[in-house]
This record gives sequence, structure tokens and C-alpha cells, in this order.
Amino acid sequence: MKVGIADTTFARYDMAKAAIRELKTGDSVQIARYTVPGVKDLPVAAKKLIEEEECDIVMALGMPGAAEKDKMCAHEASLGLITAQLMTNTHIIEVFVHEDEAADETTLAWLAEQRTVEHARNVLDLLYRPERLTQRAGTGRRQGFEDAGPIESSKSGKAH
Amino acid sequence: MKVGIADTTFARYDMAKAAIRELKTGDSVQIARYTVPGVKDLPVAAKKLIEEEECDIVMALGMPGAAEKDKMCAHEASLGLITAQLMTNTHIIEVFVHEDEAADETTLAWLAEQRTVEHARNVLDLLYRPERLTQRAGTGRRQGFEDAGPIESSKSGKAH
Amino acid sequence: MKVGIADTTFARYDMAKAAIRELKTGDSVQIARYTVPGVKDLPVAAKKLIEEEECDIVMALGMPGAAEKDKMCAHEASLGLITAQLMTNTHIIEVFVHEDEAADETTLAWLAEQRTVEHARNVLDLLYRPERLTQRAGTGRRQGFEDAGPIESSKSGKAH
Amino acid sequence: MKVGIADTTFARYDMAKAAIRELKTGDSVQIARYTVPGVKDLPVAAKKLIEEEECDIVMALGMPGAAEKDKMCAHEASLGLITAQLMTNTHIIEVFVHEDEAADETTLAWLAEQRTVEHARNVLDLLYRPERLTQRAGTGRRQGFEDAGPIESSKSGKAH
Amino acid sequence: MKVGIADTTFARYDMAKAAIRELKTGDSVQIARYTVPGVKDLPVAAKKLIEEEECDIVMALGMPGAAEKDKMCAHEASLGLITAQLMTNTHIIEVFVHEDEAADETTLAWLAEQRTVEHARNVLDLLYRPERLTQRAGTGRRQGFEDAGPIESSKSGKAH
Repeated sequence: MKVGIADTTFARYDMAKAAIRELKTGDSVQIARYTVPGVKDLPVAAKKLIEEEECDIVMALGMPGAAEKDKMCAHEASLGLITAQLMTNTHIIEVFVHEDEAADETTLAWLAEQRTVEHARNVLDLLYRPERLTQRAGTGRRQGFEDAGPIESSKSGKAH
Repeated sequence: MKVGIADTTFARYDMAKAAIRELKTGDSVQIARYTVPGVKDLPVAAKKLIEEEECDIVMALGMPGAAEKDKMCAHEASLGLITAQLMTNTHIIEVFVHEDEAADETTLAWLAEQRTVEHARNVLDLLYRPERLTQRAGTGRRQGFEDAGPIESSKSGKAH
Repeated sequence: MKVGIADTTFARYDMAKAAIRELKTGDSVQIARYTVPGVKDLPVAAKKLIEEEECDIVMALGMPGAAEKDKMCAHEASLGLITAQLMTNTHIIEVFVHEDEAADETTLAWLAEQRTVEHARNVLDLLYRPERLTQRAGTGRRQGFEDAGPIESSKSGKAH
Repeated sequence: MKVGIADTTFARYDMAKAAIRELKTGDSVQIARYTVPGVKDLPVAAKKLIEEEECDIVMALGMPGAAEKDKMCAHEASLGLITAQLMTNTHIIEVFVHEDEAADETTLAWLAEQRTVEHARNVLDLLYRPERLTQRAGTGRRQGFEDAGPIESSKSGKAH
Repeated sequence: MKVGIADTTFARYDMAKAAIRELKTGDSVQIARYTVPGVKDLPVAAKKLIEEEECDIVMALGMPGAAEKDKMCAHEASLGLITAQLMTNTHIIEVFVHEDEAADETTLAWLAEQRTVEHARNVLDLLYRPERLTQRAGTGRRQGFEDAGPIESSKSGKAH
């Protein structure tokens, strides 16, 4: 299996390094990396990784800024990533860390590392062990910060 | 007939379980389930269920968070689900429960269960009894919370 | 000629009934009706009416709710309807009545009836008498509420 | 060369008349006109003018209202017009005049006339004299209101 | 290699001139230039440069105004540029300078010049030296204003 890694020079943390380290743990995946300037360049990079480099799945890594304009860029990039997936019938796992998700730079770097690593595990599960994702369906998983966890209806609560 | 169920590990309630239980009541449908990390992964999952698993219809189940960023994710996912339908001429029934639709977790779980079950009935009607939907056209149906019900113009009121 | 009518169980007024009544006045059109749960299901329904039922034009009838989430649904549906038209080179006349367009339910029902009827006339003109639309070009027509009417520049005012 | 004119009955000024008058000044262009109810009907009308009427370029003329809902309609129409261009590799020059761009109806009519005329000149340049557009590149041209004009960096200022 | 330059008469600075000057420094690229009225005309211009002029990459240069309506135009153009890239598997580097990014016209002109030049270097790297982009991945590069620079997690900080 071959995993494409599309990342940016705009990001302030080397998310690709984190992704590649995790992807190489325990499964023999090939990696193709493609760096572009910003998140709006990721959709076509991801599509080229799929169609020209024959990747089976792609991770699209980015760190949008905190300004309103940056959020719009991220939105446009996300729409493009979804369209690219529909055009190729191939998953592109978006891993975006927004600069205003953390109060300081150290936490932001930690979040970029952690979210990337956890999504790399999702990528491996999608490729090799999709049943593991189904086992965790509806359990409130989050990538990076703490999981939200599952909720129960009173009905199901009473039923057990 | 074969129904695809695309769901997420992000959701905090096992909506797929509710959907499958309802779909298996009284009609002999086959089920194909596909779990992905979050709602933005649903469009390609749904398209793959249609094109690679030959599903006749898909339910896309998700529980977007309450933050502004989560609402944007849901919007992007919805647009992707509509595009996937247009590319395949196949219905993908979106069942999204937003975390801020209920005041507490118990109600939220109840809503996730109820909306999924009612949409599973819509799926069965679309597949086997489309005339039932036409009988209920314009009657203010809601999935989950109480129906809004029909309204009447004074003209039609007088006409009867 | 064959007109497709796509409508919803979510709507609180039977707009399709109004459309069909008007379409059958004076022109011999065939009707194909397709009811779906909500407005986001309309784009694929309209596309199927065009491609599978060979409709020459489609009316997409819906009544989005007043909440912010409902407005987003309507926006997503509208984008899908435009894409469906571009994929088929066929008109899909969107007739949406927003629940907050009227102060009370009687007016809302009247508006749903009136806007649908006036758009049904537009459909007939597009099919049989496109020159009538050109005669009314730039005259501030509205469907439902009163027409806004044309405006004149002082230059044209002076010219006459 | 053949120019398509797509316009609406919703608009309150006959922009097509202004466009056609200007297009017929000095160049021998053929005109095909197609009137639809509102701006959301323009994308498919423009695409049909290109693909069924063999137009080399299209002008899409509209006057969106001032309400929030009208702005959303204009946004949806604009996205559709861009998609239609990408599907046909053909320019569709959007000429939209928003009802809140002018303080009174006379100015609004003047603006609708003026912007249409200036964009008709752009259309002729795109068809016959593209080098004229390049000569004006980066000079702050506006259609309708006064040009914003070019700006200079201090560096270039000093360089000359 | 051939680089397409799509620019506008709306912009208030001749960004294309800056791009061409930089592109001709040190690499033997061919240039094809295509000027259109505004940013919403850029997507089809860029696609035509790729498909009709056989450009290997395109720069889309624009200067959206400061008003809300201008920001919406830029958003629509950006989405179209992303779609055009996905339809052609070719990069279109968007270089937009928003009129409200600078406090005065001199700074705005400087920013338009600087951002264009830095993105022209990105274009050359994408064409000839993609490994240079990967070397700068995750280092917080900005085009125009000062780079944001990389951040470090405390973990990596301790690791070294």
C-alpha cells in the first residue's frame, strides 16, 4: 500500500515528519510526499498523488492561520479535498490544525503532532483494519484533544 | 435491495446500530457498513458504498459538534454528499444530529436514535413504497422532534 | 412535454398540488411527481426526473424552516440544484418558500400557493412561449409577493 | 462571432437592451438572447447558449435584491456561472447590479445601464482585441462607478 | 516549461509584470499572459491557459476590493480556481492581495509586488526543484509579509 502525504510550507510545524514516523510503525507502507505553498494548493496535490503516484490514500496536512481570511482559505481547501475524493473514489484524510485552537505555540505544536499521529493511525486502519473503525463507531473519538466519549439515551440505559 | 450505512467514530452515539435495527424490521434489505473518522470523510465513503458495494441507497450518519468550526465541517460534508448523489443518481440520506440541538446528553442520544430510525423508514419508503412519501408531501414532517404539521391558506380553508 | 415535480414531506403546504393544477390549465403537459424527505434530497430527485423519467423541465418545491441551520440546508440544496442543471442542460425551477417570509401561517400558505402557481406559469413559458419571458425582461417580476416593477434612468426618462 | 445574452424578468432594468445596443456598435456580432425568471436560472441558460446556440461568449445579466436571501441567491448563481465556464472553456461575463449599490432608483438604473455597457466593451475586447485588456491590466478599472485607478509602490516611484 | 499568467484590469497594480520579471530570472520558462476584467473571470482563463495554451502551471493574480461583496467575489473565484486545478491536474497558484491588507496604497503596492515575486519563486520550485519546498515544509512561510516561522513542541524541544 502507498500513502501520499501532501503538506505545506505555510504550516508552522512539520506535520509530515510526524505522519511518516507513525505510518512506518508496524506496517510496511510506501510513502510519497508532496509539499506545496498553502492549504489551497493541497486538493490538486492530493489528486496528483492519487492519480500520478498511485497512492491508495492521502493525508492532507495543513495549519490555517487565525484570521477570518485564513478560515475562508481552509474552507475552500476542505471543499476541494472533498471534491478530489469524489473524483477519485479515494480517501484524503484532512488533518488541519487551526492556529487559534491552542493558547500558546507549545500547545499548538503538541496538537499538530498529536492530531497527525492519531489520523495516521486512522489511515492505517482504513487501509488494513477497517473493522477497528467500526468497533469505535459512535464513541466520540477526537484527534488531538481528549475524546468526547459516547453518550447514552435513558432508554438504552434502562434497557441494560 | 442493499442499503449502505456510512458512519463516524466522531459521533457520540451508535446511530448505525439504530439504523440497522430499523432497516431489518419487516423488509429483507442487505446492509453494508463503512465507518470513517468524521463527517468530512462521509461523502467518499457513501460514493464507494454505491459504486464499489453496489448499494441502492446510503444513509450518511453523523453528529457534528457545537463549535463554529464543526458547523463548517458539517456544511462541507453536506455539499459533498449532494455532489456524490448527483454523480451517482442515487439517494444518500443525510442524518446529522448537531450537538447543540439538545440541552443535555440524554436528550441528544434520544434525538440521535429517533432521527435515525425515522430516516431509516424514509429509506425503506424510497426503496419500496415511494407513494407513501407522496401521501405525506407538504405535511410538515420532521425527523426526531415533533412534526411541524401542515398549514392551510384561508382560501383552501374556505374552499372546504 | 413532461414536467417533473420534486417535493418534500418537510414542507407544510402541498405546493405540488398547486403546481400540477396550474400546469394542467391550457397546455397538455405530462407530469411526473417525486416526493423526498427534505430540500437536500431535491437535487438528486430532480436529476433522476430528468435522466430516468425524461422530464423536459423540473420544479423543485420546498419550504425551508426559519432557523439558521435550515437556511444553510436551503443554500446547500440550491447549489445542488444549480449543479444538477449544469450536468443535464435542463432547467430546474427552484420554488422555495422560507418559513420566515410571512408573519403568520395563513399568509405563508397563501405565499406557497401563489409563488408555486406563478412559477408554474414561468415553466410553461420556458417550454412553450419563451418570447413571453423576454417581453417581461427587466420589469422587476416577483413570484408570490407584489412585483417590484421596472425602474428608469433619468437619461431614458429624458429620451422619451 | 456570436454573443449570448442571458437575462431575467426579476431585474428592474432592461440590461439586455443596453448590452445589445453596445455590442452592435462597430463590430458585426450575432446575438442570441435567453430570458429566465431569476439569477439562479442564469447558469444553465448561459451553458445552453454556449452548447446549444454555439455562442462564443455569454453575458449573464442580473439585479439581485438587497435582502440577505437575495445576496445568497447571487452567490449561488455566481458559483454556478463559474462552474459553467469551467465545463465549457468559455467566458460568461457576469454583470450583476445589487439593488443596494445605489441610493435611489435613478442612480440604480444608471448603474445598470453603465455597468452593462462597459462590460459589453470587455466582451468585444475578449473576442476581438484581447491585447487591449492586457494594456489596462492592473490599472484599477471598475464597471459602472469611477475607476479606482492604479497605485504605485515607492520603489517603482523612485525607480522612475 | 510554460507558465500561464492570468491577471485582471480590476487590480490596481501590475502584478503580472512582477511575476514575469521574476520568472525570467535564471530559468528559461515560456510565458503566456491572459488578462480578464475581474477575479471571477480568472478560473476559466487559467483553465484555457492550461488546456488551450498548454501551460504547465498558472499564476492567477488578483486584487479583491475591501467591501463585503468583493470578499465574496474572491471566495467564489478561489473555489473556481481549485475546481479548475482538479479538472486539469495542474497547479494554479492563486496570488490575491486584498485591498484591506495594507494601511496605505504604497504598502499595498509593495505587498502586491512582493507576494507575486515570492509566489513566482514557488512556481519555479514546483516546476524545477520540488525538493526545495519539502525542505521548507512546516516552517511558517508567508508570501509578502514576514514569515511566521516554525514552532516547536516542548517534547521535541527536550528531544534535542
